[in-house]
Amino acid sequence: MTDLAPLSSTGRTTLGRRKHRAVTDRAALHAVLDEALICHLGVVRDGVPMVLPTGYGRDGDMLYLHGSTGASSLRAATTGLDICVTVTIVDGIVYSRSINNHSMNYRSAVIFGRAEPVVEREAKMHALHVLTDHLAPGSWEHARDVNAKEFAAVSVLAVDLAEASVKMRGEGPGDPEDDVAADLAWAGVLPVSTVFGEPEPSADLTGFAVPAHISGRAAAGR
Amino acid sequence: MTDLAPLSSTGRTTLGRRKHRAVTDRAALHAVLDEALICHLGVVRDGVPMVLPTGYGRDGDMLYLHGSTGASSLRAATTGLDICVTVTIVDGIVYSRSINNHSMNYRSAVIFGRAEPVVEREAKMHALHVLTDHLAPGSWEHARDVNAKEFAAVSVLAVDLAEASVKMRGEGPGDPEDDVAADLAWAGVLPVSTVFGEPEPSADLTGFAVPAHISGRAAAGR
Repeated sequence: MTDLAPLSSTGRTTLGRRKHRAVTDRAALHAVLDEALICHLGVVRDGVPMVLPTGYGRDGDMLYLHGSTGASSLRAATTGLDICVTVTIVDGIVYSRSINNHSMNYRSAVIFGRAEPVVEREAKMHALHVLTDHLAPGSWEHARDVNAKEFAAVSVLAVDLAEASVKMRGEGPGDPEDDVAADLAWAGVLPVSTVFGEPEPSADLTGFAVPAHISGRAAAGR
Repeated sequence: MTDLAPLSSTGRTTLGRRKHRAVTDRAALHAVLDEALICHLGVVRDGVPMVLPTGYGRDGDMLYLHGSTGASSLRAATTGLDICVTVTIVDGIVYSRSINNHSMNYRSAVIFGRAEPVVEREAKMHALHVLTDHLAPGSWEHARDVNAKEFAAVSVLAVDLAEASVKMRGEGPGDPEDDVAADLAWAGVLPVSTVFGEPEPSADLTGFAVPAHISGRAAAGR
């Protein structure tokens, strides 16, 4: 599947509402996944939904999830667990002339699939590399490698991006003509963004300068 | 229930892992819910999980959800739909001396409950007020009121905060002594925050100054 292939559209990823906000190219999906820091992972446990913030990383059309984040149920995950992974970036608060037309600018990706534990040694090491590159680019080369005990203890899930949708809104308020003509309230967008601050060295660090892969991220702001 | 009452701890909100990160006072729950902009709403549809970014607002121990956000299934929600609402604020990337101890600083709230549609007129208007105050404080007083047609078209769900948990991490890296002694990698926290930018007036706005409730939010940055 190329970067420009349309996303799949099964019944559950075809948006029932505001279709014009759906985006159907794979590059947009990848861009949302690569920019956000965490996903929200949904599973069904005892018949009810459970949603947990989870670390992830993407390689091509494969998404890796940090399996030990929070849910003990995930560590014991059998193969083929139905999951939903949702990633959302908030870009702005949309102020309209009317309460009813207030909205948000955002980009979100929703992926349905079956999670498979990654257990084969080489594949699991690759998945940990991908997860690390997403959370902390440069750390894989800079920090101490995963040792055998740590490697055994960590768990990783994989899900492919076959069934995915991207939805976004990125524009000013959509006020009807009579509200615009009345001119009784301010309308526009208050931008929202996620930024990085200055690195805060650990208290027990003795004279180690902030490496470029971290200072550069701070300098870029995001 | 007072602000200092412990959160409930049913089986599904008692954390199986890293119990020291669980926070059990209601003020912490309220603080997380009041600071974040969106939640991730989990439901079960056709036996599989579905997670959608959703607007919300809190009043005391009642959470209101914008029912028409994305999911057509929610608009038709029958009473007592099992949901899970998760709100996450990312505060930092934790760089450790080892790949394995990399982590994130964050605050998250997970609420399990049954969503009830808010249909009674006064209660629904109150819920819209609460939702608006969360998304855009001051807009309820500033923008045009909801008219009868809009009021009929919008849907709101309510869920109480009876079964909720808060989890957080807010500290430096937890490296073992031998990694600290080896001094082979930088360790610390790269802070992450969500900020507001300068308000961008709508292109069709004619000379309406940015009101204080919006300019003040931009000036505060968050």
